[in-house]
Amino acid sequence: MSSRSWEAFILSVIVINAITLGFETSETVMQSFAGPLLRFFDALVLTIFVIEITLRLYAHRLRFFRDPWSLFDFTIVAISLIPASGPLQVLRALRILRALRLLSMIPSLRRVIGGLVAALPGMGSIIVLMALVFYIFAVIATKLYGEAFPEWFGSLGASIYSLFQIMTLESWSMGIVRPVMDVYPNAWLFFVPFILSTAFTVLNLFIGIIVSAMQKEHEQELLEESRQAREPEMLQILSELKALRQEVAALRNERSAT
Amino acid sequence: MSSRSWEAFILSVIVINAITLGFETSETVMQSFAGPLLRFFDALVLTIFVIEITLRLYAHRLRFFRDPWSLFDFTIVAISLIPASGPLQVLRALRILRALRLLSMIPSLRRVIGGLVAALPGMGSIIVLMALVFYIFAVIATKLYGEAFPEWFGSLGASIYSLFQIMTLESWSMGIVRPVMDVYPNAWLFFVPFILSTAFTVLNLFIGIIVSAMQKEHEQELLEESRQAREPEMLQILSELKALRQEVAALRNERSAT
Amino acid sequence: MSSRSWEAFILSVIVINAITLGFETSETVMQSFAGPLLRFFDALVLTIFVIEITLRLYAHRLRFFRDPWSLFDFTIVAISLIPASGPLQVLRALRILRALRLLSMIPSLRRVIGGLVAALPGMGSIIVLMALVFYIFAVIATKLYGEAFPEWFGSLGASIYSLFQIMTLESWSMGIVRPVMDVYPNAWLFFVPFILSTAFTVLNLFIGIIVSAMQKEHEQELLEESRQAREPEMLQILSELKALRQEVAALRNERSAT
Amino acid sequence: MSSRSWEAFILSVIVINAITLGFETSETVMQSFAGPLLRFFDALVLTIFVIEITLRLYAHRLRFFRDPWSLFDFTIVAISLIPASGPLQVLRALRILRALRLLSMIPSLRRVIGGLVAALPGMGSIIVLMALVFYIFAVIATKLYGEAFPEWFGSLGASIYSLFQIMTLESWSMGIVRPVMDVYPNAWLFFVPFILSTAFTVLNLFIGIIVSAMQKEHEQELLEESRQAREPEMLQILSELKALRQEVAALRNERSAT
Repeated sequence: MSSRSWEAFILSVIVINAITLGFETSETVMQSFAGPLLRFFDALVLTIFVIEITLRLYAHRLRFFRDPWSLFDFTIVAISLIPASGPLQVLRALRILRALRLLSMIPSLRRVIGGLVAALPGMGSIIVLMALVFYIFAVIATKLYGEAFPEWFGSLGASIYSLFQIMTLESWSMGIVRPVMDVYPNAWLFFVPFILSTAFTVLNLFIGIIVSAMQKEHEQELLEESRQAREPEMLQILSELKALRQEVAALRNERSAT
Repeated sequence: MSSRSWEAFILSVIVINAITLGFETSETVMQSFAGPLLRFFDALVLTIFVIEITLRLYAHRLRFFRDPWSLFDFTIVAISLIPASGPLQVLRALRILRALRLLSMIPSLRRVIGGLVAALPGMGSIIVLMALVFYIFAVIATKLYGEAFPEWFGSLGASIYSLFQIMTLESWSMGIVRPVMDVYPNAWLFFVPFILSTAFTVLNLFIGIIVSAMQKEHEQELLEESRQAREPEMLQILSELKALRQEVAALRNERSAT
Repeated sequence: MSSRSWEAFILSVIVINAITLGFETSETVMQSFAGPLLRFFDALVLTIFVIEITLRLYAHRLRFFRDPWSLFDFTIVAISLIPASGPLQVLRALRILRALRLLSMIPSLRRVIGGLVAALPGMGSIIVLMALVFYIFAVIATKLYGEAFPEWFGSLGASIYSLFQIMTLESWSMGIVRPVMDVYPNAWLFFVPFILSTAFTVLNLFIGIIVSAMQKEHEQELLEESRQAREPEMLQILSELKALRQEVAALRNERSAT
Repeated sequence: MSSRSWEAFILSVIVINAITLGFETSETVMQSFAGPLLRFFDALVLTIFVIEITLRLYAHRLRFFRDPWSLFDFTIVAISLIPASGPLQVLRALRILRALRLLSMIPSLRRVIGGLVAALPGMGSIIVLMALVFYIFAVIATKLYGEAFPEWFGSLGASIYSLFQIMTLESWSMGIVRPVMDVYPNAWLFFVPFILSTAFTVLNLFIGIIVSAMQKEHEQELLEESRQAREPEMLQILSELKALRQEVAALRNERSAT
């Protein structure tokens, strides 16, 4: 089987498996005649994936683990192999993650993911800053409002979650800050600056990504353009100069000839 | 009747019909003397539209179906002709879609729509990625939370709708995630990554559109500008060079003459 | 009194009046000894403004009405002169609009407002498109859901307001669409496309403004830059050429001299 | 101790102190054996910080107060020294602000903060405009709706807070404007323009920041690029010209020689 048709086969297995896993969410489907069929198909797909990964491992050997996309495929298949019983039953729900293998199979999706991942390092400093802001505000919130509002600010984790909700502006005022202000009337002095500072930081994160995205695009483009745009007249000048030089050289030769 | 005044006539028919259809939403208006009048006018407008489309079909024949805007007009008028009774009564409400014909009649709106549609293919990969993310999270949500929260995650469709709501950040925490966390305390491990990943994907979709929009604008502009900006000195150099060459040629001619 | 100090005087009158109008919102202040004082000061300020506008009208005559900022000042002062009693009592609350005169007095604010207004015409087509989308969806919503949900979609006006709320994503799902879906299970087919299409249109409005803002900035900048960047070498080439031409001319002269 | 390892020491003290202050939020931890330890460590850290600042003050003297980052460190440590008892007990919660010293210690964070602060002056006019809009709308809201809705618009401060909530679009309609419209049916005439105008102003603030951020990036980049891009042909032309001039000069010399 050629490499191309093998890829097409794996691709269609992934898509069909994604669909059958969708059907498995329906109780009525699973209790009908289709239930056992879907379960059998699922086992079949897993077998195909294991064979595929094994073949690729055999072909590429250690290089396999150097390609991040291969590692990605490997991890996804490995998750499916863990026996999903007892406390790990949640893993059965994660079988649908196999559909993520589409990301590594379709080049255009691969490029999009590559672009997203490439944007991450440039965001490093701002993400650290964000984490610091969250941590500091969460510690203060737990200290100040933890006793009165244990559900929202009872522990550091609860505070971080609540602050995340406030950052997304979901019910921040009616749901959280107004009730808090009924007990601590000055609470807005804590929450409004938090909203403003996180909004401002997110805005800067956002601008940083836009600016760097546009830079990359422009860099290549501008170079090419300015070259193209310059060419006609530049070439005219150059050819004019060369003709002129030949003329002068001819003049000199004639002179020497006399 | 000239083409221009015919167009102006159709345009005013569309606008007036849009207004009368607005009036038809009022019960008191429809039960007054104006009711039968509005109904009659509506039938009249439909007749005019059918005649207009028939004429255009006769004039352009098969080319008619190659122009997307003609197809657009055709579909809108066709919808109005389906007998709106029984289960199709909802179609009566869709008569207002005729106002969309303004999009195909007014050039500036046509250009805006053209721009929006032109932006779509560039968004293809990210939309596929988004659909994949939604599908995967919806399958997992249905598996994990479907039993406890049938209203929100009872079926794949319900989960997709709830996840869309969560993506728009509407009541995501107070309305959905906090109640879910009362039953499954680790639910934030599912929902917070979902919010972050969709927000990040939407952000990238958005940046992609901005960047490509600016590229197009700049491409033409920059070219023109750099040409304009260069001209004065370039032309000076060129004319200087030409004069110089004439000088040298003259010199050579004089030399040969002697 | 010089023009500068007169302007400073009017400016401080505006600022102080804005502050006193702020105090007037407090019942306790108005019932204390300060109440009559504030009322008197307000009348005094109005007198000063009327005198100022009259003087400007006398100085500029008809030209006064050609300057949009003068018209702006005139309208604001005129509103304060309407006797605010009976149904017009709401006008008393609008006296604070006088603070808007700061916009016409402070050059940097004037420039910001100028920029905002200058951005409007470029948004024309998209605003018309938005209005059309709102009108069409509002008519359909009134027809389909008006009877069952009179508070939200009972009339065209109510529908437009509710759709505006939905566009801002405020409580769109938990507050409005989920209750509607309890009666009409397919209502999401109406509301989700509405959200997507308005979000997409707003996004394009937004991008249009960014692109045009950056264009203006770049246009001047680029021109200047490319000129500056080019100068050193270009000038070198030009001077080289001029020297060369003189050389050739000298050569020719010498030749004629012999 | 060298300057580098001293910095590393202070850095790790800050990080460990941030973590211990996080543990202090937990009641169970504080009541276990770890409580007194954490309190002792906290006192130790404060001592280290005071010594460090004193040393830096001694080394730099008055120059210390000219560096904004030194002032920043000084303020943070000074806050920790205020006896946190009675009404100032809230200051105990602010000890976590010491973690902000990371901002002044890590160069990349320092740069991010520098960038954020540098963006502020360019936003000056729009922030003043925003404040003016808020003040005017708050005065009007207090006058119009203060009596009927004292919780939301009872005083100028309450109105400003409520308007801030409305600007963030949190529960603006279901939570505030719909209840207000039950009493004053025309209230949307006040709130919808407020939302549109603040959204538009924030949008412009945002665009201004993006445009200025991109300008700075492009300015340097473009200059460099256009120079690089131009070089090859320009140098070719220049060398061609020089060769030509030498040729002519040689011609002239030969002529004089004869």
